[in-house]
Amino acid sequence: MALIVQKYGGTSVGTTERIQQVAKKVAKWRSQGHDLVIVVSAMSGETNRLMTLANEISHRPLARELDVLLSTGEQVTIALLTMALLELGLDAKSYTGAQVHIRTDDVHCKARITEIDHRKIRDDLANGRIVVVAGFQGADEHGNITTLGRGGSDTTAVALAAALTADECQIYTDVDGVYTTDPRVVPEARRLKSVTYEEMLEMASLGAKVLQIRSVEFASKYSVPLRVLSSFEDGEGTLITSEEESMEQALISGIAFNKDEAKLTVVGVPDQPGVAHRILGPVGRANIEVDMIIQNVGDNNTTDFTFTVHRNDYEKAEEILQEVAKELGAKQVTGDEKIVKLSLVGVGMRSHAGIASTMFETLANEAINIKMISTSEIKISVVIEEKYLELGVRALHSAFNLEDSKKQQ
Amino acid sequence: MALIVQKYGGTSVGTTERIQQVAKKVAKWRSQGHDLVIVVSAMSGETNRLMTLANEISHRPLARELDVLLSTGEQVTIALLTMALLELGLDAKSYTGAQVHIRTDDVHCKARITEIDHRKIRDDLANGRIVVVAGFQGADEHGNITTLGRGGSDTTAVALAAALTADECQIYTDVDGVYTTDPRVVPEARRLKSVTYEEMLEMASLGAKVLQIRSVEFASKYSVPLRVLSSFEDGEGTLITSEEESMEQALISGIAFNKDEAKLTVVGVPDQPGVAHRILGPVGRANIEVDMIIQNVGDNNTTDFTFTVHRNDYEKAEEILQEVAKELGAKQVTGDEKIVKLSLVGVGMRSHAGIASTMFETLANEAINIKMISTSEIKISVVIEEKYLELGVRALHSAFNLEDSKKQQ
Repeated sequence: MALIVQKYGGTSVGTTERIQQVAKKVAKWRSQGHDLVIVVSAMSGETNRLMTLANEISHRPLARELDVLLSTGEQVTIALLTMALLELGLDAKSYTGAQVHIRTDDVHCKARITEIDHRKIRDDLANGRIVVVAGFQGADEHGNITTLGRGGSDTTAVALAAALTADECQIYTDVDGVYTTDPRVVPEARRLKSVTYEEMLEMASLGAKVLQIRSVEFASKYSVPLRVLSSFEDGEGTLITSEEESMEQALISGIAFNKDEAKLTVVGVPDQPGVAHRILGPVGRANIEVDMIIQNVGDNNTTDFTFTVHRNDYEKAEEILQEVAKELGAKQVTGDEKIVKLSLVGVGMRSHAGIASTMFETLANEAINIKMISTSEIKISVVIEEKYLELGVRALHSAFNLEDSKKQQ
Repeated sequence: MALIVQKYGGTSVGTTERIQQVAKKVAKWRSQGHDLVIVVSAMSGETNRLMTLANEISHRPLARELDVLLSTGEQVTIALLTMALLELGLDAKSYTGAQVHIRTDDVHCKARITEIDHRKIRDDLANGRIVVVAGFQGADEHGNITTLGRGGSDTTAVALAAALTADECQIYTDVDGVYTTDPRVVPEARRLKSVTYEEMLEMASLGAKVLQIRSVEFASKYSVPLRVLSSFEDGEGTLITSEEESMEQALISGIAFNKDEAKLTVVGVPDQPGVAHRILGPVGRANIEVDMIIQNVGDNNTTDFTFTVHRNDYEKAEEILQEVAKELGAKQVTGDEKIVKLSLVGVGMRSHAGIASTMFETLANEAINIKMISTSEIKISVVIEEKYLELGVRALHSAFNLEDSKKQQ
């Protein structure tokens, strides 16, 4: 018998029929004797409906009032799910964020949880009740309703699990776990039984959108075992946990890729101190985020300065660089939108040498040219031409033996 | 400069466009220097939408969870109206019932307000803010969300006006005031400048559905001047106030009628003590409400016992009476669905004799037969055949000089 926090997202509770399905899933866990706290999002489409109403009235609605409006979405779901649980003969009770004292700071629309008073929940659990809590929301110290921003319901679930020292926090979503890579690219991709917080963070930041970065950080900080499962199929999902607790100690956990980047180079910049700042300063001031950065030494005391940005920011960044290049006396600005970033992620890298060279060799064997390289302790990223994406991912997936043997031909 | 509580119903806030209209109306009052507290209902249609969702999950949803669900309706409106006020450059802030401590008992779906802590509202008003409060809802002593039942938003407005000792509580609706009678029946019907709480209570209980009885009782108890006005047109509406404060001291304020009644008679009941109880007991136990009751002495120590019920209960009541008649040895049960109750209402009756006889004479002159009579201190009701409704109302309206002279030909 364990204390489990479960979170069901908008798609999982998108219709009353699906809410009834979730109730049945919860009932099954309950029948195994577990104590359950269920966190839910707004029904899919509801947040958009409310935003449309707000925008009909104001192009820039005040964040405080937007929170009052949007928080009704999850409130509807908690009531409906609780009704569905009661209908199955289970004892259950619903709470808004404010009602269970999910205290946040006062930054409306992207508040951060500061404190949770879990006594009410403990009492209900002790009385054999299933507790249903509205995700994504809380209240500041003055009782104003706040919302937590993108992925907020995941954060609520992890924060509740931390406060209650739950045995596990289960995130139900529309995929059945974390894979070695995108199964649409590599059909042999294998679902990971477990992965470390750090690896999950790298994968999330690289575009694998199973979990929001913030909730993984939170889980890591408070050592909450996190499990990603499918709302629609049975299965064990993927457990995200600390390195010590992780069962699989694979060299490489997965291959992530990001197709949303573009690369820009300022060619022939005088090689002087402060150049990087003079180039990236104006870019940052235009609110353009820079990802990978590389500076090569060139001829005649000049250097080539290359970095990647989100593809949506490409044109704006290029305009800025043309100005900067003139001021710096650089030769020219070149760019490439048809690139992709491809990353190997694995905590095993820390203790194993030779992974980078295997990666580069594998790509070379397929005649894939590497345009940029960047590494961290548990990640190696390369930028290659977009057209080589599938080829590169498949070659690496096979080179590092990540396949699910059952799926191989 | 006054402190005014205004309430806008579901039709008045039925679309974002109408919410913007309400904001403009509020802005106009604000520009006259008044302190304003605005109470709103759910957008029309919203409560039905939520009820449909609940019923898809449960035929008998738990009242506590229904309150969690339905209370989101007003919460959406307070956010949108506040956004609209801010958009007009006014300072405004929204609150749910729980947030301004509208404390109720714990009878979910028909809770009664027990206490209001109005400090937060006072602070906001002192800071020049318009306060927007969700009607229809509150919270019990444990913080559970409750709703007040039918007409609950009117009750919220009156309760807030009482707690704040407001100068006036204005109920905005889709009619522009209280009329001497239904203008669809008598085109010359006149809007009353003022009417007493007691008269309003009689008219409301007689089917004039401008205000919910409960909110009028509340206003009367706490001497809150209540004004009914149109959301869509300008005008002074009708002031509902105490007899002392009332400007018009008319003999008769209005003529109400009720087409929803049916009449049943048990003929030839032995005239013994306890007969009324033996007839009405089984009717009451079947949850059928009885309105007018008359007992006539007949021949041979028998009596005829007649009463009216809602037309929807007519068949059920008749079945019950057939049983009862057998047990009592009564002659037969007769009934009539084609009747209507017609009532004169006016505090002036207290001090003027002869009103009843003028009423009966007027009806007699039109050859309208009176089937039942019942009186209270400020009301005389008669039951007549349904086909004479319009004729009767017009004749009485004219006999008591209730016409708007401007509208007369």
